[in-house]
Amino acid sequence: MLDHPLVPGPTSAIEKGPWHYGADYISVFFRGEPLSLKRLVPPPFIVDDGTCMAYVCEIISVGDSGAEVVASRPDRTIYQEAAVGVKCKFKEKTGIFFPVMWVTTEWSLLRGILNGYRKRLADRISMTKLHPLNPGLKPISAGSKFGGFCMKGPGQTLSLQVAVEKAGSPSDLPSFGATYGVRRFPGISAGQEGVNEPVEILKSNSRVSDVWIGTGSVKTELEVGKIGILFGAVYRSGFTISGSRPLKE
Amino acid sequence: MLDHPLVPGPTSAIEKGPWHYGADYISVFFRGEPLSLKRLVPPPFIVDDGTCMAYVCEIISVGDSGAEVVASRPDRTIYQEAAVGVKCKFKEKTGIFFPVMWVTTEWSLLRGILNGYRKRLADRISMTKLHPLNPGLKPISAGSKFGGFCMKGPGQTLSLQVAVEKAGSPSDLPSFGATYGVRRFPGISAGQEGVNEPVEILKSNSRVSDVWIGTGSVKTELEVGKIGILFGAVYRSGFTISGSRPLKE
Amino acid sequence: MLDHPLVPGPTSAIEKGPWHYGADYISVFFRGEPLSLKRLVPPPFIVDDGTCMAYVCEIISVGDSGAEVVASRPDRTIYQEAAVGVKCKFKEKTGIFFPVMWVTTEWSLLRGILNGYRKRLADRISMTKLHPLNPGLKPISAGSKFGGFCMKGPGQTLSLQVAVEKAGSPSDLPSFGATYGVRRFPGISAGQEGVNEPVEILKSNSRVSDVWIGTGSVKTELEVGKIGILFGAVYRSGFTISGSRPLKE
Amino acid sequence: MLDHPLVPGPTSAIEKGPWHYGADYISVFFRGEPLSLKRLVPPPFIVDDGTCMAYVCEIISVGDSGAEVVASRPDRTIYQEAAVGVKCKFKEKTGIFFPVMWVTTEWSLLRGILNGYRKRLADRISMTKLHPLNPGLKPISAGSKFGGFCMKGPGQTLSLQVAVEKAGSPSDLPSFGATYGVRRFPGISAGQEGVNEPVEILKSNSRVSDVWIGTGSVKTELEVGKIGILFGAVYRSGFTISGSRPLKE
Repeated sequence: MLDHPLVPGPTSAIEKGPWHYGADYISVFFRGEPLSLKRLVPPPFIVDDGTCMAYVCEIISVGDSGAEVVASRPDRTIYQEAAVGVKCKFKEKTGIFFPVMWVTTEWSLLRGILNGYRKRLADRISMTKLHPLNPGLKPISAGSKFGGFCMKGPGQTLSLQVAVEKAGSPSDLPSFGATYGVRRFPGISAGQEGVNEPVEILKSNSRVSDVWIGTGSVKTELEVGKIGILFGAVYRSGFTISGSRPLKE
Repeated sequence: MLDHPLVPGPTSAIEKGPWHYGADYISVFFRGEPLSLKRLVPPPFIVDDGTCMAYVCEIISVGDSGAEVVASRPDRTIYQEAAVGVKCKFKEKTGIFFPVMWVTTEWSLLRGILNGYRKRLADRISMTKLHPLNPGLKPISAGSKFGGFCMKGPGQTLSLQVAVEKAGSPSDLPSFGATYGVRRFPGISAGQEGVNEPVEILKSNSRVSDVWIGTGSVKTELEVGKIGILFGAVYRSGFTISGSRPLKE
Repeated sequence: MLDHPLVPGPTSAIEKGPWHYGADYISVFFRGEPLSLKRLVPPPFIVDDGTCMAYVCEIISVGDSGAEVVASRPDRTIYQEAAVGVKCKFKEKTGIFFPVMWVTTEWSLLRGILNGYRKRLADRISMTKLHPLNPGLKPISAGSKFGGFCMKGPGQTLSLQVAVEKAGSPSDLPSFGATYGVRRFPGISAGQEGVNEPVEILKSNSRVSDVWIGTGSVKTELEVGKIGILFGAVYRSGFTISGSRPLKE
Repeated sequence: MLDHPLVPGPTSAIEKGPWHYGADYISVFFRGEPLSLKRLVPPPFIVDDGTCMAYVCEIISVGDSGAEVVASRPDRTIYQEAAVGVKCKFKEKTGIFFPVMWVTTEWSLLRGILNGYRKRLADRISMTKLHPLNPGLKPISAGSKFGGFCMKGPGQTLSLQVAVEKAGSPSDLPSFGATYGVRRFPGISAGQEGVNEPVEILKSNSRVSDVWIGTGSVKTELEVGKIGILFGAVYRSGFTISGSRPLKE
């Protein structure tokens, strides 16, 4: 039987979870204006102190049969992502909610929506990569510059720049807590069923490495209010997502 | 408030319906093998006599504010689509079910899924276009050839060729009856809600013009069994989709 | 023998000429500042009175075997183009020089460069299309709006808007005269040969139809100085290019 | 002055050389049939013993201002490439000639053509990437599988698979000797100038690391005759290209 695009399976757009991720991030941590941010975060989530993050990253993502799929269908294992996240609370538990995440492949778009992320398809995401054997590039060191941008339709949705100053450690990165989302599939005609389910994404196996910390800047079409930069960072990260847990209000 | 990608609205991937379509089709009508087709059509739909259609088309699609959007955001009004449809029945009512439709934009992908189509994102769809002022091309006439193909990942999902023989009329095209689909948004973690709702697409305002009939051929990765060609056709068509109606089993 | 990409032939990027074109244009005619325009137009061409045009178009282009190729390889017959042209003179003969033309396919890029155009590859060009059978769109009439944009890398290189006011005729469109270019293939290492050859593009079979005239606006990264809009227009056009003729200085 | 696309400069498609490269390769070394290969290699180059290589790679490439450009314009520093190379001789000096190289960006296409490579634009190149922090993937080890493919128009131009068996060293990779090409810009109309100049690419600063050797397979639309696989390999490589040197026949 041919799978529905959203029903995980071998002929679907989405392979069966859990899904494993390895990502290279260029991130900027900043403060937005809570009044603006409130328009980006739906209930039951409450905007916290205005702390936000923006990033672009390249992700290698696989299911449990990853070792085979990376070779047979590399196009189903690599994508780029750009996003803005807002620190918020569900009841007393802090976390991060992403008003939007732009991605470059069908399967990351649909898988994310199924899990509760507000994913959109980018036309293009580009970001700095260094290469250790390139005779014109140095390894990352104090002063190294990184940048990235995301394009969609007639404009740029997000761009950021980071200049690193020193090696850091995973503990230098803010901990937002949980990752929140909303699983949403609205009824739009008379009598149709729908889903509207706030969730916490089930993330495990988190690890971070190769952290560098420095200054940064960010521009986005998202209306986050006046931006106060905290710092920029580049790092690598890995984690597993096994689905999401409905939140009881 | 920023809209969820699937909740129709000004900042969503999907604008509010009804949605209007104008399309240029290259189509091949054929017989597949019912035993194969059964694996492509989920219950409650029953494969009919094996009649199928395959097409590639370019579509201009807008909501009710179309006259503005075609100018301000043309990228939100044009896409290409390739699909295979299978004649089937729901109870006694015949119709067509599309095991898969490949499209070239985010908004046609998500809008279609919301309405009950099994849409997938193509990497590329290309199809013949003639132009009346091109000094190297003749207007359509007996013998004119048309072709199209759809690419996704490492291969071609569908290609077809049509050589027209004579002008026809809308009544020369098979009438499949209703358009069927399944609105599907599965729960994939413990306790998650889901939707699994067979529907009839609500189509109106149908009109067809510029029909030419001839021979055709089709190749597809979809396992439809041995193909027996009925005929090929090119034509233009317009219609409106206002949503979909849940079917009571 | 496998053809070099630039040597016209069956396995090259470029098929043998002459090349025939049928195009749908959205254009804005404007005045730029001659001092700025001089930095966009190389010798031996002399900027005229500052008259310029900007356009986006979709083009169906074929060689002499077009009737076959549109069906067997439609991807080799369709592209989008965006460009800015500047009225200029070679000796006493007026013409138009295009400081840059963005196109969406390899073959239009390389063929254009070979003929003397300064082509660049766009990431995306999108432009208004109407469809006569779309129930949400009206046929072109006074007040109809058109728009288009071209994206490359992190930004928009060109966008324009036209609102038509009345049907026109081909004679309503400015006649620039000749089309000028430079065939250029520089030597960049010691002892390498090179080409630097001003040319007039050999255009014939020109015809124009479906002209509508109105107002327009244009934005471009090209430094044309302050823009004074003359008028906007949409129209269809066809022509043949058989190569280009070296200009003797 | 706005640069011509092919004349290296800040507003050209090509930045000034020398150009530095850092690349991750998945390669298969094989024997093709000399009779077939002769149709792929133009004079003055003579096919050697049928040894060939095919690869897909991701390349980070910069000019001398690379540290800035990777951050400000990452889209101008990253591309994918797929190619088939044939061992050949110029007089007594052995080397490799690439009948075709498919690349994913305008600037790598045009820069390569200017230097003497027969570059073509791919629609898409995808290849295996591992990520050290992905919980579903292991670091490269005996048995790790790699694959890649290149798409263009209606089909796949090249695909390959490698299963590595053991860590190797740079000396395990065949040395082809020089890299040969032809700088070509044909005159195509009466009186036009042209260039037809066999060259040796000026490559320096070569280094190779992270070599793994194993088995492989390759499929290509290029007519290389019956393929006899020698071995497969993955590795990283860096080098500098400063132009190309005309060969005197």
